[in-house]
Amino acid sequence: MKVSELGEFGLIALIAEVAAPTQQKETPAGSNLLIGIGDDAAAWRGKAAVQLVTVDSFIQDVHFSLDVTPWWEVGWKALAVNLSDIAAMGGITEYAVVSLALPEDTEVEDVRALYQGVTALALESGVAIVGGDTSRGPQVALNITVLGSTLNRDEKMLTRSGAKAGDKIAVTGYLGAASAGWEMFAKKLRFDAGTTARLKEAFLHPRPRLAEGRLLLEQGVEAAIDISDGLVADLGHICQASRLGARVDVNAVPVDPVVKAAFAERALELALSGGEDYELLFTASAGVISRITKMMECPVTVIGDMVAGPENGVALFDREGNSFKLPSGGWEHFRQR
Amino acid sequence: MKVSELGEFGLIALIAEVAAPTQQKETPAGSNLLIGIGDDAAAWRGKAAVQLVTVDSFIQDVHFSLDVTPWWEVGWKALAVNLSDIAAMGGITEYAVVSLALPEDTEVEDVRALYQGVTALALESGVAIVGGDTSRGPQVALNITVLGSTLNRDEKMLTRSGAKAGDKIAVTGYLGAASAGWEMFAKKLRFDAGTTARLKEAFLHPRPRLAEGRLLLEQGVEAAIDISDGLVADLGHICQASRLGARVDVNAVPVDPVVKAAFAERALELALSGGEDYELLFTASAGVISRITKMMECPVTVIGDMVAGPENGVALFDREGNSFKLPSGGWEHFRQR
Repeated sequence: MKVSELGEFGLIALIAEVAAPTQQKETPAGSNLLIGIGDDAAAWRGKAAVQLVTVDSFIQDVHFSLDVTPWWEVGWKALAVNLSDIAAMGGITEYAVVSLALPEDTEVEDVRALYQGVTALALESGVAIVGGDTSRGPQVALNITVLGSTLNRDEKMLTRSGAKAGDKIAVTGYLGAASAGWEMFAKKLRFDAGTTARLKEAFLHPRPRLAEGRLLLEQGVEAAIDISDGLVADLGHICQASRLGARVDVNAVPVDPVVKAAFAERALELALSGGEDYELLFTASAGVISRITKMMECPVTVIGDMVAGPENGVALFDREGNSFKLPSGGWEHFRQR
Repeated sequence: MKVSELGEFGLIALIAEVAAPTQQKETPAGSNLLIGIGDDAAAWRGKAAVQLVTVDSFIQDVHFSLDVTPWWEVGWKALAVNLSDIAAMGGITEYAVVSLALPEDTEVEDVRALYQGVTALALESGVAIVGGDTSRGPQVALNITVLGSTLNRDEKMLTRSGAKAGDKIAVTGYLGAASAGWEMFAKKLRFDAGTTARLKEAFLHPRPRLAEGRLLLEQGVEAAIDISDGLVADLGHICQASRLGARVDVNAVPVDPVVKAAFAERALELALSGGEDYELLFTASAGVISRITKMMECPVTVIGDMVAGPENGVALFDREGNSFKLPSGGWEHFRQR
């Protein structure tokens, strides 16, 4: 069987199965492990705090194209996707190591721009770049590992598996602008200056919701994920990990107003499945969400409910309660399309 | 200017310069940083111990060829190169995350074998595989990040910059068998069964010197590096970081006896510049080395002296004191050859 037939999630299940013996409770490392393979970041009990680690690859012509994303922004985004994973656990970001593969004929000034992009976001997020690796490679590939922690040692953090039936589902900010920005670049769409600026910013300079993630954790939220693959796909990850279903009112989804104006009826699809918004999707009681909404600087929107039941997946409805069918799914590697 | 003209070490210097602002002492992460970019691993002051992190890429047709290295061994070696970096700091290995890129038509059973290789060495070394990332990519590429610590918080560890003029230079084990193994596979050389088995083992199943690294640290050694690029190149890294020169007696270098028998006069070259032996190269006073030699299970051989002076590099001599010229240098990425 080929990896393309197994799919990304089948592959992760296989990896988790093979690597399971390394996490045995009888070992020093295993006995302190809190979250292993399958969440946004791994977590273990440190001496004074919960330690977090996450890694994401950012590969030319898989995750980005240099035709669309300039070098500086490649660096920024490669770090952003990792910081967002720490945000989705409610963590503080501390250290990062950067593994970089480059073709030999890469211009040195391009590499400098790339690292300046990494550095700019690192400074903004309090992350020290402490090491890494450089290597020849057939295309540009970054693998950034970010280390973080939680503020205390009480072992609470935001996880994909923390949702409960009856929880409300909420999301920070607006959705759809990042994928709308990608479409604008890739299809060379022309918009007015304000729309162009907003979509460019959303796609090229995503800002991980680190402060918001910590606030969620402090306020007692237990389930969260960052929206990288798309709202529906990422909510599906929460459903699967929490063994619950989700009902989403698509009319409540906070579609970015600029996207709504520029993409008309396709705007909702971009918000539901476009991905790369790096907003936080979380579940909690109505009371907790109401308190958080007042405390957060960014908008918080309730979009549905976590439900028990056999569906174990995401069901979409419109305002009249009619079932809503999504034209396409979220991002998954390896699947043939 | 192209990256190939700048070279790997020029590139690392550029990266260190651009990323330096992220390590400022005024930041929480920066204030605890002990070792940043440029050593085998980065290190910072944790709450109860010094924390270590290292990442290395292992890329198909750059670091390995599937014609020579089977899938299981690709996994083993990709972890081994990272554990060896923690060994070279005197650390304990704890957690690892594995970022894996694969072509879509990769056989699932090959991925399973790769992960079984990673897992086998992880179990042997007490490392928990706690997460990672999977992605499509044009060729097989692993980026493994390993986290470790030292036993205590007194901030001592083995570094490249810890050598002192007057130190003796010593090396664990024997050298040359890994690169001899690579030549055997790549050039399809035929040897007797015993030689073949030894060279195959050295090239495909390197064992990081973790226990030996910790012993060096406990016994007061301050400077060490693992031999990945080759003895001369890696000793050059110690010279550069410690701002010293080194004088090596090539006749004292512990060439693997099997390599000596099979490769005759080329054996010394393989031992001096072949690389991938993952032995530890360290410097200390004659007294400390003498004590360590008695305590270690593997051979420890003194091969030369660290010297002050303008050369800031490695000088090779034979037993008669004549200068010895190395046919080729160590491994460096990006340089055109």
